[in-house]
Amino acid sequence: MPEFLKLKPPFEALSIFLDTLPQREVPSEVIPTVSALNRVLVKDVLAPHPLPEFSRSTVDGYAVRASDTYGASESLPAFIRYVAELPMGKDPGITIEPGTAALIHTGGMIPNGADAVVMLEHAQLVSEDSLEVYRPIGVNENVIQKGEDVKTGEKVIFSGTRLRIPEIGGLMSFGITEISVAQKPRVAILSSGDEIVAPQLKPAYGQVRDINSTTMSLIVKEAGGEPILYGIVPDDEAKLLEVTRKAFTECDAVLFTAGSSASSRDLTSQVISKLGSPGVLVHGVQVRPGKPTILAVCDGKPVIGLPGNPVSALVIAEIFVKQMVKKLLGESNKNISPTIKAYLSGNIPSQAGRDDWVPVSLFNEMGVWKAEPIYFKSNLIFNLVKADGLVHIPSEVTGLSAGTMIEVELL
Amino acid sequence: MPEFLKLKPPFEALSIFLDTLPQREVPSEVIPTVSALNRVLVKDVLAPHPLPEFSRSTVDGYAVRASDTYGASESLPAFIRYVAELPMGKDPGITIEPGTAALIHTGGMIPNGADAVVMLEHAQLVSEDSLEVYRPIGVNENVIQKGEDVKTGEKVIFSGTRLRIPEIGGLMSFGITEISVAQKPRVAILSSGDEIVAPQLKPAYGQVRDINSTTMSLIVKEAGGEPILYGIVPDDEAKLLEVTRKAFTECDAVLFTAGSSASSRDLTSQVISKLGSPGVLVHGVQVRPGKPTILAVCDGKPVIGLPGNPVSALVIAEIFVKQMVKKLLGESNKNISPTIKAYLSGNIPSQAGRDDWVPVSLFNEMGVWKAEPIYFKSNLIFNLVKADGLVHIPSEVTGLSAGTMIEVELL
Repeated sequence: MPEFLKLKPPFEALSIFLDTLPQREVPSEVIPTVSALNRVLVKDVLAPHPLPEFSRSTVDGYAVRASDTYGASESLPAFIRYVAELPMGKDPGITIEPGTAALIHTGGMIPNGADAVVMLEHAQLVSEDSLEVYRPIGVNENVIQKGEDVKTGEKVIFSGTRLRIPEIGGLMSFGITEISVAQKPRVAILSSGDEIVAPQLKPAYGQVRDINSTTMSLIVKEAGGEPILYGIVPDDEAKLLEVTRKAFTECDAVLFTAGSSASSRDLTSQVISKLGSPGVLVHGVQVRPGKPTILAVCDGKPVIGLPGNPVSALVIAEIFVKQMVKKLLGESNKNISPTIKAYLSGNIPSQAGRDDWVPVSLFNEMGVWKAEPIYFKSNLIFNLVKADGLVHIPSEVTGLSAGTMIEVELL
Repeated sequence: MPEFLKLKPPFEALSIFLDTLPQREVPSEVIPTVSALNRVLVKDVLAPHPLPEFSRSTVDGYAVRASDTYGASESLPAFIRYVAELPMGKDPGITIEPGTAALIHTGGMIPNGADAVVMLEHAQLVSEDSLEVYRPIGVNENVIQKGEDVKTGEKVIFSGTRLRIPEIGGLMSFGITEISVAQKPRVAILSSGDEIVAPQLKPAYGQVRDINSTTMSLIVKEAGGEPILYGIVPDDEAKLLEVTRKAFTECDAVLFTAGSSASSRDLTSQVISKLGSPGVLVHGVQVRPGKPTILAVCDGKPVIGLPGNPVSALVIAEIFVKQMVKKLLGESNKNISPTIKAYLSGNIPSQAGRDDWVPVSLFNEMGVWKAEPIYFKSNLIFNLVKADGLVHIPSEVTGLSAGTMIEVELL
């Protein structure tokens, strides 16, 4: 099995793959901003106007001239003439003359003349038109100035950003209701293997249903790509090459999930090597599960051969497929993997020199998370159904003992 | 401001709210399994057949009778007659007689007679029909038995589970291509406030664009609900009550985002108290941002009044709206919040007796994550755009010092 002669550590394999993949010109499309969640921005967004667009009060209180409050105290309050309650959502249309004050609400526009807002609790209306202020206030206190948050022309969201809810909200605050984002890269998905049938079919005795086409589609979608299914191809080189060439021409990337036999995997590798140069970069990754992984770049397009085993395919796709789609999108977001800390409730053996990802189930004991390793013989998908996450055991570690504090990557 | 008289700690407020909300009969619908990601299952899934459906090899090797290998060693191999290469995906149709072996691939069906598989590396074909085996092998070694993973009728996915990619894959392995899931609860979203205009409009001087309708819609969708927008209602009690009654009748839950003024918030609370009993449960939460939050249950339906401030609304919705939708869906998944560990790069002051959520920006320094607190005067949405996550400072903590290891909840 030549494929196992040059096993690479997973993150080294990923670097080789991503470094060889050229950064393409990312095609874009204009879509409604409300539909742009998780899409990737292709142009910097510059503020079309300042925020706020007018000076606003940050509290409920009284708009005053700060100088009218100097020296005020509980025992010797400043007396100021109360003139009006200011409306929300419009220019108050009055000027605060020296010695006068007006009631203003949080978010209300600061009227002409006023330069500060006394909080409600530091003043009291003692008659219909007479306000007592019990504390001195500084100029601009409780006021946010026009443009203080964002100035016109300021770069507020950068090209390459994957839009989250705050970004969508920020675009709305400028009235930007349409936005140019990266087109979803088309990712071809092919399953091969003589033992595989489509999930809606009843397998003949000796066959199993194809899970990977579905799970890989969902991973591609989650990463921001558009999965294009090319179905199940039998382990026949001519046929596989024909379907693959079509997929390679029509899409921006190709994902194979091979059958579970060595010959099916070898076939995948032979076909990939005919697609273009430089071709196969990594053939076999020092990782469990997922050893028989193939990473290739063919004439500028990424091609990944995933293990046929559904659990291996999912673990490997989390690492390689997501990063591939990210690069195709021109995404620049930080790679932040959220985890949950937990105490291991059983020992996990692991072989040095190999990265392991072990599924665990989480349970909470008096506010503390514990992680129960899921041991299993076959790589059945239902072992992942029982799992809440995966524990990564780096190659230099030879197993983890019960009681160790670990970080669980959620599934 | 009566609303601040009885501030509740956030998690106590959440418990009161969820405990008062009755668990409803969850309406269901049948949809294609491939579209069921993040939907919630309404019935347990029982395995319609065993997995695997036939005994399979877990390695590439030779199917044998284990007893033929007893006593074998490197120096004294067992000689076994090689009879065939077994096909993938079908019944091999042969019987392994005593003293014979057949080549089998990973995932291939174990033929009659055979009860173990010798790995390729522990055997060698020395002539066309003669195999040397260098190690003894036990019965069932490298074999996964029919039904060993899952037995017929076994409960494989529980009602109330939110379907992730592994669950979708698991359903596919049984050929379950349609599935009954909870209908998405309809969540009405109303914005009030005289200073608010729709995002596609140009605000008059003194107005701001409505961000919350959009961000709350996205939060509701993410949680698994269907947002129904009822637009912006001016701060007029009769008008607000009319629109609210309509929303309350047509939907399973109502979310308000009030204007930023105290009077707009008071109006929301008055209107909610007219919808049904028991009505307002919590009026004001001891949290920053998000103090002016209203939680109510009216005639069995949940109603939430969110702060008008877009940052506060988002932080509060992460806690209360998501849990509300989860209960409406009958979801039973564990509440696991993934975080990322980081060292704080600056001090964060905080007042004892109040839960704070402070936005931070993450950066990586030589493989270590650091979290930079984002200090700001106004609660502008672009402060969240700069943020990667939030740091929760519980009420008993009075601030955090630079250098402290913290957990960041990603946005």
